[in-house]
Amino acid sequence: MRKLLLLSTSVLQNGKYLDYASDVIKAFFAENGVSKIVFIPYAAHDHDAYEKKVKDAFLEFGLELNSIHKSDNLMATVKEAQGFFVGGGNTFLLLKTLYDLNLLEAIKSRVLQDGIPYMGSSAGTNLATVNICTTNDMPIVHPPTLDAFGFLPFNINPHYLDHDPTSKHMGESRETRLSEYHDIPNAKSPPVLGLREGSWLQVKDDQILLKGSISNQTARLFVRGQQTKEHEVNSDLSFLLKM
Amino acid sequence: MRKLLLLSTSVLQNGKYLDYASDVIKAFFAENGVSKIVFIPYAAHDHDAYEKKVKDAFLEFGLELNSIHKSDNLMATVKEAQGFFVGGGNTFLLLKTLYDLNLLEAIKSRVLQDGIPYMGSSAGTNLATVNICTTNDMPIVHPPTLDAFGFLPFNINPHYLDHDPTSKHMGESRETRLSEYHDIPNAKSPPVLGLREGSWLQVKDDQILLKGSISNQTARLFVRGQQTKEHEVNSDLSFLLKM
Ligand SMILES: [Ca+2]
Ligand SMILES: [Ca+2]
Repeated sequence: MRKLLLLSTSVLQNGKYLDYASDVIKAFFAENGVSKIVFIPYAAHDHDAYEKKVKDAFLEFGLELNSIHKSDNLMATVKEAQGFFVGGGNTFLLLKTLYDLNLLEAIKSRVLQDGIPYMGSSAGTNLATVNICTTNDMPIVHPPTLDAFGFLPFNINPHYLDHDPTSKHMGESRETRLSEYHDIPNAKSPPVLGLREGSWLQVKDDQILLKGSISNQTARLFVRGQQTKEHEVNSDLSFLLKM
Repeated sequence: MRKLLLLSTSVLQNGKYLDYASDVIKAFFAENGVSKIVFIPYAAHDHDAYEKKVKDAFLEFGLELNSIHKSDNLMATVKEAQGFFVGGGNTFLLLKTLYDLNLLEAIKSRVLQDGIPYMGSSAGTNLATVNICTTNDMPIVHPPTLDAFGFLPFNINPHYLDHDPTSKHMGESRETRLSEYHDIPNAKSPPVLGLREGSWLQVKDDQILLKGSISNQTARLFVRGQQTKEHEVNSDLSFLLKM
């Protein structure tokens, strides 16, 4: 069982927080009968401020949301959750905090065994995949491992960005960074989906749909040893579960 | 003791490998009486190819360079080295490989105790600092710790890049990423020097000079709890040793 909504970004330029995806967020929780959501704020430092921002946005969607950091029994809160939203920020901080609080396995089991809906954005989307090896974030803290929830057997690179051919900058392009991952000798680095801002994945059990708010947008798929390939919004990417 | 040459980048746009810094590289090794350099290639996957590229560049500088990966006694090679060059690539891969091969402490001791000159570029510059928490690279592998050589008690962000105000991209700017590092509650995250491409540090014992090949360039200093500050090329940054 697997009910996932995975956004590349929380906000588009000049937009309000989560506004561009409001319809899909409302539909995702409505069709799963969820009206009250547990928020995971650990990708940011200031949990109170983060909760306020997200709570306000969800209220406008007609949804109640409460951050887990205010609970005095984290495990009970996870066990009773109807749905989760894991917000963006720093992916290393998010993963390390979930390990430190012993929440990783608990949330994982709720989503995979009990079919509890999981929405992620940016760092929260990274966490839904096999590991955080393809985050864009800085390693400001050191998690015990890079392994994440593994709801999906591949990687996502959120905020995927094309190389700007006019740039004079010589730091690696996103494409080069991802090829470094796939070029590790004798490794089995899984495929990586480069998910551009404005796109998201809707996952229901064994079906993965690529969706987006920007017309003609594509997502770029990196597979070890193969040429990269663009997939258009509205494509069925379920084949990624069998690679 | 400390003799360091730390470059932000190995190459400038349209340039040959290390070409923009050739004079300073020649001077650095000459004034320390070094004619034969041990190359550390572990930031890249293909050590043979990497050695060839670097060897050719150093030959043009009149310097002999051999990669440590061809040695059948790594520890002896470190112990006999006249000088080191640690090249760029993926910082996580570089650090993990040095830990895996038990080379981190050995090289550190040669540089700090024996005063052996150390040149780093990009990832090799990250490694010279207290840790790799401010690398721009993806965590394609998981080192046992993020602690690095610690020749300097602060962090460097190589390839430092200003935010492009015309960009529609919503992923964090470099500035935001560095503030995430300094905003960790109850931590002692050290200062971070944002070293732009074309700049480098020359370190001799307790003197740190900011140098560069581009006129009027500055480096940006991030200090926890303070406003960022720009320092011009040719500034003396020795105060960073006492912060
Ligand atoms: Ca982030
Ligand atoms: Ca790099």
